[in-house]
Amino acid sequence: DNPDITKERKSASFNLYKMQCFVYEGQYKLKRRQEILDFVESHKEFDDPVHPHFLNREEQIDRATRKCVAMMNNLEAIDVTDYFDEAPLYQFLTIGRELHCLSLHYGMFLPTIQNQCDEEQLEEWLGPAASKAILGTFAQTELGHGSNLSKLETTATYDAKTQEFVIHTPQMSAAKWWPGGLGKSANYAAVMAQLHTNGENKGPHLFMVPLRDTTTHLPLPGITVGDIGPKFGINANDNGFLIFDNYRIPRRNMLMKYSKVEPDGTYIAPPHSKLGFGTMVLVRSLMIRDQASQLGSAAVIAIRYSAVRRQGEINEGEGEVQILDYRTQQYRLLPQLARSFAFLFAGYEIRATYLHVTKLIRHSANTELLPELHALSSGLKAVITWEVAQGIEQLRLSCGGHGYSRASAFPDIYTYAVGGCTYEGENIVMLLQVARFLMKIAKEVRTGTPKLAEIAEYIARTDSGAARVSRWKTCADEDIIHDFEAVTRKMIFSAFDRLKSLEGTMKKKEAWNACSIDLCKVARMHVKTYLVKNFLARVRTCEDSASKTVMHTLAKLYAFDLISGAGGHFMKGGFLSETQANQVQVDIYEMLNSLRPEAVALADSWAISDLELRSVLGRRDGNVYPALLEWAKASPLNKSEVLPTFDKYLDPMFKEG
Amino acid sequence: DNPDITKERKSASFNLYKMQCFVYEGQYKLKRRQEILDFVESHKEFDDPVHPHFLNREEQIDRATRKCVAMMNNLEAIDVTDYFDEAPLYQFLTIGRELHCLSLHYGMFLPTIQNQCDEEQLEEWLGPAASKAILGTFAQTELGHGSNLSKLETTATYDAKTQEFVIHTPQMSAAKWWPGGLGKSANYAAVMAQLHTNGENKGPHLFMVPLRDTTTHLPLPGITVGDIGPKFGINANDNGFLIFDNYRIPRRNMLMKYSKVEPDGTYIAPPHSKLGFGTMVLVRSLMIRDQASQLGSAAVIAIRYSAVRRQGEINEGEGEVQILDYRTQQYRLLPQLARSFAFLFAGYEIRATYLHVTKLIRHSANTELLPELHALSSGLKAVITWEVAQGIEQLRLSCGGHGYSRASAFPDIYTYAVGGCTYEGENIVMLLQVARFLMKIAKEVRTGTPKLAEIAEYIARTDSGAARVSRWKTCADEDIIHDFEAVTRKMIFSAFDRLKSLEGTMKKKEAWNACSIDLCKVARMHVKTYLVKNFLARVRTCEDSASKTVMHTLAKLYAFDLISGAGGHFMKGGFLSETQANQVQVDIYEMLNSLRPEAVALADSWAISDLELRSVLGRRDGNVYPALLEWAKASPLNKSEVLPTFDKYLDPMFKEG
Ligand SMILES: Cc1cc2nc3c(=O)[nH]c(=O)nc-3n(C[C@H](O)[C@H](O)[C@H](O)COP(=O)(O)OP(=O)(O)OC[C@H]3O[C@@H](n4cnc5c(N)ncnc54)[C@H](O)[C@@H]3O)c2cc1C
Ligand SMILES: Cc1cc2nc3c(=O)[nH]c(=O)nc-3n(C[C@H](O)[C@H](O)[C@H](O)COP(=O)(O)OP(=O)(O)OC[C@H]3O[C@@H](n4cnc5c(N)ncnc54)[C@H](O)[C@@H]3O)c2cc1C
Repeated sequence: DNPDITKERKSASFNLYKMQCFVYEGQYKLKRRQEILDFVESHKEFDDPVHPHFLNREEQIDRATRKCVAMMNNLEAIDVTDYFDEAPLYQFLTIGRELHCLSLHYGMFLPTIQNQCDEEQLEEWLGPAASKAILGTFAQTELGHGSNLSKLETTATYDAKTQEFVIHTPQMSAAKWWPGGLGKSANYAAVMAQLHTNGENKGPHLFMVPLRDTTTHLPLPGITVGDIGPKFGINANDNGFLIFDNYRIPRRNMLMKYSKVEPDGTYIAPPHSKLGFGTMVLVRSLMIRDQASQLGSAAVIAIRYSAVRRQGEINEGEGEVQILDYRTQQYRLLPQLARSFAFLFAGYEIRATYLHVTKLIRHSANTELLPELHALSSGLKAVITWEVAQGIEQLRLSCGGHGYSRASAFPDIYTYAVGGCTYEGENIVMLLQVARFLMKIAKEVRTGTPKLAEIAEYIARTDSGAARVSRWKTCADEDIIHDFEAVTRKMIFSAFDRLKSLEGTMKKKEAWNACSIDLCKVARMHVKTYLVKNFLARVRTCEDSASKTVMHTLAKLYAFDLISGAGGHFMKGGFLSETQANQVQVDIYEMLNSLRPEAVALADSWAISDLELRSVLGRRDGNVYPALLEWAKASPLNKSEVLPTFDKYLDPMFKEG
Repeated sequence: DNPDITKERKSASFNLYKMQCFVYEGQYKLKRRQEILDFVESHKEFDDPVHPHFLNREEQIDRATRKCVAMMNNLEAIDVTDYFDEAPLYQFLTIGRELHCLSLHYGMFLPTIQNQCDEEQLEEWLGPAASKAILGTFAQTELGHGSNLSKLETTATYDAKTQEFVIHTPQMSAAKWWPGGLGKSANYAAVMAQLHTNGENKGPHLFMVPLRDTTTHLPLPGITVGDIGPKFGINANDNGFLIFDNYRIPRRNMLMKYSKVEPDGTYIAPPHSKLGFGTMVLVRSLMIRDQASQLGSAAVIAIRYSAVRRQGEINEGEGEVQILDYRTQQYRLLPQLARSFAFLFAGYEIRATYLHVTKLIRHSANTELLPELHALSSGLKAVITWEVAQGIEQLRLSCGGHGYSRASAFPDIYTYAVGGCTYEGENIVMLLQVARFLMKIAKEVRTGTPKLAEIAEYIARTDSGAARVSRWKTCADEDIIHDFEAVTRKMIFSAFDRLKSLEGTMKKKEAWNACSIDLCKVARMHVKTYLVKNFLARVRTCEDSASKTVMHTLAKLYAFDLISGAGGHFMKGGFLSETQANQVQVDIYEMLNSLRPEAVALADSWAISDLELRSVLGRRDGNVYPALLEWAKASPLNKSEVLPTFDKYLDPMFKEG
């Protein structure tokens, strides 16, 4: 290994294994990570004869399809019911970040069948879908509509004469657009369409729609389907478009667990409008965990590289330093590392909440906590995806020129992760939903009738003087939490008051729109307060004291960095004094100093293997330069010394010159 | 055209042509933009039989090479000496953002010959380089070194016996890495190497090095050269690596305008160490202009799309609104548009300064203003590239799902522009250089001996009480400027004091490092103050009063948005009161309101043609959906209904299922 990185590993004050156990909630998951890695590495099916970066799009799709089929044929070592950890890890190890045509089949199509089919329909479709006799996707978004699902334009008109639905794309903006795997792979789709029966529009409903002939794979008559073209990332996924020309499906292809259409066209409404919620909340919860890993991966790469990169001197004549020694570099790296853990731990918490809430619903049809969970998962999704995206780019830039090469893996991590800002609910739209939840609470508090679950409890508390945050080493967790809660509470009520006062001069919805920038800020701060509290709480559960000390510093760095970034809000009304604000800043520098020798070991705590990382820059052994050269030499352009462009264009140019 | 966009064009309060004239400094340049566009569109050589997004890397390189040669063969209509406007516009119109193998030849190789060769060398190389009988690049960066050029490892050892230099790569980290066009295209390079003569190392010097046989294009013996592999962006440029194995070149291949090595090996030092500066400053100045256009392009796309995209209702039952009506959307778009103009006008100013300074140097060898220009161009480069990158992503995200498609052009704009954060001086390194300049001034002010050029003059003024900013409509420019200057001044001296106090307890360089985060913040604020002042000053020159009013609002939005973003700094010491801070926020909303009907016309003021924009989403006519579908249908994956993956992987999977 590179001696610089070995030296770093020795300088940590904690035992790596113990820290990894803390990070992965005990020995079991850590052991499983290794076992799954060994399993993937021992299977020839998962080898890459050519490095994935060197493939064109057709080749990428070929590789990903080959591998995802192989992946599903080799499940004996994987607990696929663990969709928070084992399943995504397995996918990342086998395929990587360009995804594949089965993502939506497992992520949305199967769950939709499980949650939206009645018994008879389950009987019919669950088997084939689970055994991959058919390949499905989830077709909701259209060219013209994503966020506002109520205005989707695809129609499903019931024809009682033939007992069929006629699925139709009335104009171009109604073309389905984006569904993963739809373009060239799926032969089925769960399609969201406006249900028309007996002359009435009953709103968007789901339908099971065959798309391609199961033997020839040709699109069925009435179906136009194709790939939507290259994207920023996930190019091994054939996101597709879909146009219906009065395409007929049997009545029973409407998913009828909740709403139904009877043979004569009579519509039966669902008993509870929010029961379709589950899949969305689950996917958002999974995203938190996944996004945390992406930021974690980026931090691992940048920190390791910063340990082996030597550039410039601090004291002249004393030799070039590891760039990790630059204070500015530490500031680029360590708060991002802290964030990655904050998000990981939020992922754990939301998983627990999700499992708890679904249990309540299943056992006692108790949906009381659903709005809470919905607000929490939407808020976390919006805040985390954006901070992860920004963080990855910060980390990439901190690696200088080499961060721009795809060898670094940063471009792939970024383009993969940043998609999360948009899908599963556009972030601003999500934040406004959280704000709606918060304004409802504010109103309840003001009218003295709050019914608050734990996460929003603080909103009802009364204010309590000045900020309590003090020097990082001695400051109590409670004081940090107090300050975040107090500031967020103030922001919530000040937005609420502004909203109410605007409602005096304009329509309610217009007032909402006029306030919406503030409302987004409030929602973000509420989520950040949750993240800080959750990080600190998680640290308190750490049993190894050396690990605990370092993680505690990281958690405080996270909190102090947030205070520093939201400076204005904390200083309002003199809540945080100027002396305190300046001290927070100096304390951040001290924490960077204190974490400097722990940095590489903290990165190692993520226990991300080289195979999962897929980064030349972030390799565990730190031998970056030879690996970069080797990677470059394998690039397709280097197959021949002279490209055809020489004879075609350059040589004539030289001769003329 | 889409009626929504037509409506928007009519709602503007100013005359588009007059505004465009203001933006482009008069009618002449505007006319030239159109003429160059007509020229490119009328030349078949510049057609694209296949849409560039659908090409693989080899095909991209083929296309770009073909086009850049054609570009240089068709210069009759272009004023190539106008490298701030005409030359880059021409390149964008013909090729786009993936660049090409001649970028470095014109951007660095030719200027290097012009600036670093003595008369005899000019005679020998300028002709062939200018006529493209040879194709060159600029090879400075190595695998192991970019920012710290003094530690480059490639050696050029003078051998007096043969009167040759032996160019050598002593270890892998010394391999040249990154130079544009080096991989497969260039047959010459200006190579930076440590000059060793008579047993002494004289530091990095430039050498003219032939790389490939001019008839076969094969690498010459002793040269290993290749492409460095795929990157985040600019993939039609074959950035390359280069390894020397005791490769010999004649003594006179050292560029000898300033330093020389005599036949016996005697070294003659240059008269003035900063004379090599010019090219770097020029390139950074050009970058400002270019980066502004990239942000401008992104803003044009997002604003036009936001005018034709209808999603969700504000008042229920009143129909879906243009997303431009959402306050949050306006906040995503308009401050970015304001920035794009702020940066464009900074580009104009730095061009003027550059031309002025070079004239002074040429006519009277007066280099007094060079440090100033250097600090200004470095600071602007660092601040602008980062804000442009962030802004492009904000604008992309504001377009929802379609922003993620390459059809939007955002991915290409982003990956192209963000490279600018790293090349021509890594941004943090640049900011620290600006900080050094500012600390020097602070010291001079404190010791009472300042010698200040205009841009730094404010640092010597004395403080003057509270913030003066007031309501946006009535607030005087001077008051805004006063506040920015006062805050920046305070930040400068507070960083200076912290630095001095730390110097009491540690080595000077270590104190610098300990302060470096603050120093970067100070440098950024200094640059932003310049940008605000320059934007307001430019607006004052506008002769058309309707245009002036709207541009003035945009400039104030820019300033107020900066104040709001830097809240903490303005509030320190009660400088900006809380009431003022809240008012700034409300004023931002009012300005968004006021600019809402001007938005599309303001975007049009950039006068960016569809050809230059290369965006399906941002088309002038607003007919987005049919164009998206057409683009997607042309994607290579849609050439056949069924991909080979069906027979190879999916069909077997279905059969087994
Ligand atoms: C990588 C990727 C994969 C995807 N996969 C799938 C898939 O498998 N299946 C599928 O069905 N879909 C998929 N989608 C589509 C995705 O779900 C939508 O893009 C997403 O829901 C956002 O909707 P939109 O594109 O309509 O954005 P829009 O709603 O058009 O958003 C555009 C802008 O309008 C603003 N806006 C919209 N409504 C409001 C409002 N009420 N208030 C304030 N502002 C508003 C937004 O903030 C945003 O700035 C995918 C998208 C991506 C990028
Ligand atoms: C798209 C692209 C095109 C390029 N084209 C060319 C070309 O044509 N020719 C050519 O010669 N080169 C080229 N380069 C290389 C480019 O000039 C370098 O990447 C750039 O100068 C940055 O240097 P670096 O990569 O060594 O970064 P590093 O210096 O290694 O930076 C890594 C990190 O260390 C930090 N750091 C470094 N020094 C200090 C310090 N003193 N104080 C504090 N922090 C520090 C930086 O802030 C950064 O966070 C290109 C690069 C790119 C990305």
